[in-house]
Amino acid sequence: MKSISGIVLAAMLASGCASQQQQGGQSRMPPADRVVVVKEVGSFHVGGRQMTLSGLPEKELVFSAGAAPRRVNPNGDFEVGQMYVQYIRLDAASRKGRYPLLMWHGGGLSGVTWESKPDGQPGWQSFFLQAGHDVYVSDAVERGRASWARYPEIFETEPVFRTKQEAWELFRIGPPGSYATDPGKRQVFAQGTQFPVEAFDQFTKQGIPRWASNDAATQAAYDQYVQKVCPCVIVVHSQGGNFAFNAALRAPDKIRGVVAIEPSGSPDPEKVDLSALKGIPFLFIWGDYLDRATLWTRASQTLERFEKALQQQGTDATRIDLPKLGVHGNSHMLMMDRNSDEIAQRVQNWLVAKGLSR
Amino acid sequence: MKSISGIVLAAMLASGCASQQQQGGQSRMPPADRVVVVKEVGSFHVGGRQMTLSGLPEKELVFSAGAAPRRVNPNGDFEVGQMYVQYIRLDAASRKGRYPLLMWHGGGLSGVTWESKPDGQPGWQSFFLQAGHDVYVSDAVERGRASWARYPEIFETEPVFRTKQEAWELFRIGPPGSYATDPGKRQVFAQGTQFPVEAFDQFTKQGIPRWASNDAATQAAYDQYVQKVCPCVIVVHSQGGNFAFNAALRAPDKIRGVVAIEPSGSPDPEKVDLSALKGIPFLFIWGDYLDRATLWTRASQTLERFEKALQQQGTDATRIDLPKLGVHGNSHMLMMDRNSDEIAQRVQNWLVAKGLSR
Repeated sequence: MKSISGIVLAAMLASGCASQQQQGGQSRMPPADRVVVVKEVGSFHVGGRQMTLSGLPEKELVFSAGAAPRRVNPNGDFEVGQMYVQYIRLDAASRKGRYPLLMWHGGGLSGVTWESKPDGQPGWQSFFLQAGHDVYVSDAVERGRASWARYPEIFETEPVFRTKQEAWELFRIGPPGSYATDPGKRQVFAQGTQFPVEAFDQFTKQGIPRWASNDAATQAAYDQYVQKVCPCVIVVHSQGGNFAFNAALRAPDKIRGVVAIEPSGSPDPEKVDLSALKGIPFLFIWGDYLDRATLWTRASQTLERFEKALQQQGTDATRIDLPKLGVHGNSHMLMMDRNSDEIAQRVQNWLVAKGLSR
Repeated sequence: MKSISGIVLAAMLASGCASQQQQGGQSRMPPADRVVVVKEVGSFHVGGRQMTLSGLPEKELVFSAGAAPRRVNPNGDFEVGQMYVQYIRLDAASRKGRYPLLMWHGGGLSGVTWESKPDGQPGWQSFFLQAGHDVYVSDAVERGRASWARYPEIFETEPVFRTKQEAWELFRIGPPGSYATDPGKRQVFAQGTQFPVEAFDQFTKQGIPRWASNDAATQAAYDQYVQKVCPCVIVVHSQGGNFAFNAALRAPDKIRGVVAIEPSGSPDPEKVDLSALKGIPFLFIWGDYLDRATLWTRASQTLERFEKALQQQGTDATRIDLPKLGVHGNSHMLMMDRNSDEIAQRVQNWLVAKGLSR
């Protein structure tokens, strides 16, 4: 019992200590200065299936400097199509969220989207832990710790690697044509951007190759993930949006709220019956400069039809256009922008308003 | 201040609550039932450099169901050769470790090695957090959230995908020839194995493709990682061993201890001056059945020479052969074996004995 008592004592000391420091310090402390009482940190893979390869030639390879070459037979059984989930669950006494928050990333990225920002400041994972939510951060099929499979034998097409120029323009750090290899020559929008431009190269280290042929496997894994851990609230970004909307259509009893950050696609309301989503509150958040990037002009319009269709059938769907509220300069990666805490607080306020958090 | 006070109060309540439950319950609580007071959860990428591709043909691809095709130009600038690091730092009052523990994974795997075990039980990340250490878990270059780069243009060779059969034999779940596609027909060693065999397929979902041509980039990223966060203690597995030993040779002032779990390689003591390692305590841990897999028979012998060379020059190097202590059945993945907590406790005891933890 000694070590357990030690930890409990440390927890009490830590709490008292933090309290004094915070009350004696500045009046508005940054979230990073709060402690979080964690009950459990863990991870798992979900989804996927076994596939078998045969008929491929053997190769001889050296794996570690100084080691003898090993003959490698690429044929055999593999697990493919799984996704990776990591969770941090709070002690019940400090939990304010009614359901866990599941954070789903966008295209060419991984769960790192939600962690520390590329400028080193705390991101939304930290914010929502400190706001009292159990937070789950995942890597979709083919990305990050979900791993990927041989192509074209298992994944049908070849991977796509995003260039820095594409990231710069697609994520609306600057207007088309404003990227330069030399960081000193890159141009942001005339009005400025909230993205921490000095950390743009650091941000591109987060990029993960993607496939255009894995949507069905990705959706299947997300659906199994929902069955495993929900009821829950989904916070989703960009390419993840369409997966989340479809996950909600397939398991409306499991999804208690959806916060969609600049979703890039949605089910077509003229072809898909959305009535199953009637009881689920939706929040859509859009940043700035949507009219300066064709893809986002189009996505924003497509999603406006989706949002209106939800509202017309009586679904509680809210759209926040940040510029209309006087919040200017947000990129597509608004969870990494300088004002990310301010936007997270709007999400938190919405969660409270919808009865999803204290 | 309201929300901060709320969290501090919750922390105190949580602590008291946990204390009562634990003292009223069974005499030996599993680690998962302890709370951990966390100061900061974060992540970053370290290392890597910009590379530029040119002259590759454009392609047209559809990225989301229903979206218009996009013309993709694969040429441009990329960040390559970085690694990914995630950390959980404890509140100072509950910290017992003198330095952060950096956990480095082995070949064809990622930092997931150290997280929850494939059978869902808590792994070494949890164990060492609960033992009072700041824990850093990383994905080396090319693996998981570190991402990977186009080949052969950037990574020079092609990736290698580990089959289930290779994992079964190489990680010593069962003897050579004992793997079968049908889980019911797979054979473990006659004496049994500590690996949770029923979770073997789940374990193989953790596998990540590897390259045989990235050792220099991997070492460079590890070296930068050490410069960024150390002084530290490294806990390293298998392929990671050689990277850790070299990192210690390059920055002996930064490394305060190395715990090597079945390292697969080392600098050759007949060719490399190891005197810089004199002040660093080393612990080597070896599982069972080393004589049943050629690679491990050889690696164990190679490492024995390395361990002896360290001892002969006066380095504090300890070798634990678990079977010699009466601990039988451990696989190569001993941090996932059923008795993983027991082995972690031996590591913790060693850390305390070397003044690296209270």
